Amino acid sequence: MEKSKYSKSPISAKKYALPSGNDKLTIDNFIGKNKGKKIVVVQGLGFVGAVMTLICSNALTEEYAVIGIDLPNENSYWKIASINEGVFPVIASDPKINQFYEKTKLKKNLLATYDNYAYSLADIIIVDINLDVAKNADFSKKLLDYDVDLAPFKKGLEAIGGNCKEDVLILVETTVPPGTCSKVANPIIKDCLKKRGLSSEKFKLGHSYERVMPGPDYIDSIQNFYRVYSGIDESSADETEKFLRTIISTEKFPLTRLGDTNATEMAKVLENSYRAMNIAFIVEWSRFAERSGVNLYEVVKAIRMRPTHSNLMLPGIGVGGYCLTKDPLLASWSNQNLFMANSALAQSEKSVEINDQMPLYAFNYLKESYNKSLTGKKVLLLGVSYRSDVADTRYTPVEPFYDYLVSEGADISLHDPYVDIWEEKSLSVSSNLEHLLKEEFDVLIFSTNHSEYIENSSLIESLSKKRDLFIFDTIGVLNQTEINLLKQNHRVKVVGRGDV
Amino acid sequence: MEKSKYSKSPISAKKYALPSGNDKLTIDNFIGKNKGKKIVVVQGLGFVGAVMTLICSNALTEEYAVIGIDLPNENSYWKIASINEGVFPVIASDPKINQFYEKTKLKKNLLATYDNYAYSLADIIIVDINLDVAKNADFSKKLLDYDVDLAPFKKGLEAIGGNCKEDVLILVETTVPPGTCSKVANPIIKDCLKKRGLSSEKFKLGHSYERVMPGPDYIDSIQNFYRVYSGIDESSADETEKFLRTIISTEKFPLTRLGDTNATEMAKVLENSYRAMNIAFIVEWSRFAERSGVNLYEVVKAIRMRPTHSNLMLPGIGVGGYCLTKDPLLASWSNQNLFMANSALAQSEKSVEINDQMPLYAFNYLKESYNKSLTGKKVLLLGVSYRSDVADTRYTPVEPFYDYLVSEGADISLHDPYVDIWEEKSLSVSSNLEHLLKEEFDVLIFSTNHSEYIENSSLIESLSKKRDLFIFDTIGVLNQTEINLLKQNHRVKVVGRGDV
Repeated sequence: MEKSKYSKSPISAKKYALPSGNDKLTIDNFIGKNKGKKIVVVQGLGFVGAVMTLICSNALTEEYAVIGIDLPNENSYWKIASINEGVFPVIASDPKINQFYEKTKLKKNLLATYDNYAYSLADIIIVDINLDVAKNADFSKKLLDYDVDLAPFKKGLEAIGGNCKEDVLILVETTVPPGTCSKVANPIIKDCLKKRGLSSEKFKLGHSYERVMPGPDYIDSIQNFYRVYSGIDESSADETEKFLRTIISTEKFPLTRLGDTNATEMAKVLENSYRAMNIAFIVEWSRFAERSGVNLYEVVKAIRMRPTHSNLMLPGIGVGGYCLTKDPLLASWSNQNLFMANSALAQSEKSVEINDQMPLYAFNYLKESYNKSLTGKKVLLLGVSYRSDVADTRYTPVEPFYDYLVSEGADISLHDPYVDIWEEKSLSVSSNLEHLLKEEFDVLIFSTNHSEYIENSSLIESLSKKRDLFIFDTIGVLNQTEINLLKQNHRVKVVGRGDV
Repeated sequence: MEKSKYSKSPISAKKYALPSGNDKLTIDNFIGKNKGKKIVVVQGLGFVGAVMTLICSNALTEEYAVIGIDLPNENSYWKIASINEGVFPVIASDPKINQFYEKTKLKKNLLATYDNYAYSLADIIIVDINLDVAKNADFSKKLLDYDVDLAPFKKGLEAIGGNCKEDVLILVETTVPPGTCSKVANPIIKDCLKKRGLSSEKFKLGHSYERVMPGPDYIDSIQNFYRVYSGIDESSADETEKFLRTIISTEKFPLTRLGDTNATEMAKVLENSYRAMNIAFIVEWSRFAERSGVNLYEVVKAIRMRPTHSNLMLPGIGVGGYCLTKDPLLASWSNQNLFMANSALAQSEKSVEINDQMPLYAFNYLKESYNKSLTGKKVLLLGVSYRSDVADTRYTPVEPFYDYLVSEGADISLHDPYVDIWEEKSLSVSSNLEHLLKEEFDVLIFSTNHSEYIENSSLIESLSKKRDLFIFDTIGVLNQTEINLLKQNHRVKVVGRGDV
């Protein structure tokens, strides 16, 4: 059978035929209409790149012509087509996304394309492509097995080096193994320019990482937040700074320049490793609390009053998203493969391993406390995204948890206020809680702590009227009053609480 | 030879003959002069108990007669004698300590004794005795080996139960393995009262932990800080709350009541385990930074601008003090011995193991970078206490580091602005930096980040005039300007920095 030649939008479900030939005419036409403006090309239109096109097309102190570029394949082409049709390719609860996008459309200073020709026009190229870690996906395995594949990242850099101006500023925002800009990106660009007979001394290469939070503060998490940056040399750092000042509110959120690109690359993976480790830390205390009859939520809240302990994490179902699930591994990989250490960053790797097993812990706790077969049981799963009030399902811990339920033969219904299509599972998700609750269920599970579930009195009332339900709260959605009410008719269990 | 019958003050070096007989007359006399006041007995006159006597004798909303009690042995009797002579038995940089003590002396509402008779008069007994963990003291060993000995704690409780009123309030402040109040303390008190033919239903037993920081905010870390508390039953929790309200500024720092004593006991060891783990986290990143030429101090400072990451720790020589070096082990011990789990709290134990090895890491980094034999070399060690600007040397990481230097045959001089006598090593310590620097040294080591060493231009000037010194900074005392200056004549290495 012939391979599909379409790219389908998971947002609109619209199918776009993959393009053939070049896109030069469209690009030239766009540039013609944006004369005199500096040209920014954003490579990669994912969760970061897509929003960066909006940030740059609405820069604070400069007018840019912005071109977003991605690959003309099944997975990515719909983003290009979508932007050019006026539909933003990321669903987000941040109203600023739409405001920015509307302004951009009025200004007509954003184009999306698949044609590398765009790089040849750029004054600034921002690298926002993914750098993935292939992990052993079996969460029930104890040993962590992973590999970092630099090939797609290198290919992206080669596309730039093969086309860019010799004095371009390349700003890498991709989270990379520390050492990548100096040991991988810099030689690639140099080589490409030399091969093209151009000077390899004039380009600037900077690194600055975003701290994007998909959710209600999506835009602000870039435009109104602290930034750390560096360059492979002083003029690269200077140019990077100059550019960042045009898109970020640096008076309120001062920039921090670090000594070299190794340092900023390390900073990014360190801060995410730190979060991953903070989450991993609370895992064994959850088990201890369950065993000793303690409400760990209450304990953590009491401790958080100390300013030095305010970021202590709560118990839960696991860690998701694109960053925390892999960034600690990038550091450990770099230590061994770019700096030739004999040993891993053992604790950071261990954090990922522990966190990856959280859904399994939660599932085992469910099985043990339900104490009946789940086969054929009607289960309602409330929340599929990896974090409260976001639509992002990448690496959500609900996925393995869902898989375990499926493997036990449960009959599962899904609800999420933000997710209509669970892309990774190709499943449709209901957003109508009221309607769902007209059905009868054996087990109801809170799997994401969306605001819609918190102190929702009509939800609790509706649940309390049902008969003999097993309610399993994996993330502390229910408060004590609600639990007491529900316990009149139902059994209730909470991850990280032994005192329910 | 006969055993010493003296107890020697490490502060004044004064020797006190150990007492014989009882102290009833003195106690009765003291109580007679403090008629009408409620009587608070503080058990244990260490770093917490001693300060608690001051907090209670200067309570905010009540006038107490306060009796501090400790054992009439070599180690402890000097504290009793010292208090009764008007010399406070703890050296601290907090001026409030002296202010409070002077007020107490004027009010004449504090007595110290060794006689258990005091318990029989108490309305409130505060338990501030130590609960120690015996650890394998060889920091170079990889495997952690430890044991929790409850015997002295039980003995302390028996002394109370054997003498107290049947309706006393006993407030345990000692950091204990979670479960200790309900599974150990409560049955002991009940038993003792029954044996004495008294009611075993009337006493109150509460738990509330202090968050004492020996240093400039010693008093405030008790009086003006958040408190978590609980009781073995509701009336115990109520009485505990009532008492705490008389000594703590609860309007500004509200109290938090938790569900039971297991919960508050867990909260205490959890918050210290969290700190221990935060420190352990940064250890492997220090090695990574040293290898990859990164200044980890700069990286951490940049990350700390994020409110969620503001408590990220800096690289260093190790962890000291009474709490962080053992509290994670109390939790793990409890899990296995009081709640019969099959497994340890592995990560928390691992944190202690990693932190205990930090002085060895630092020492190996010194040896490797010095690259000469240390035998016979003149070494100046700046700082012996475990933390900046405190006199506390308990479990200081400088101790194993010092021992390694000794084992290599180095000729070591010691400086510390706060420590005159290094009690654990029976060594005298100079506080005259200027005088010390008139001598010549081969190696100078910053081992505690006391304020006196930070941005001390006369220190830097004096060092820069010397010839061929090896300067080893274990805790980031030196800034880049100072390092650049010193590098003109000297070699400089910093733990957690590869870019010096």
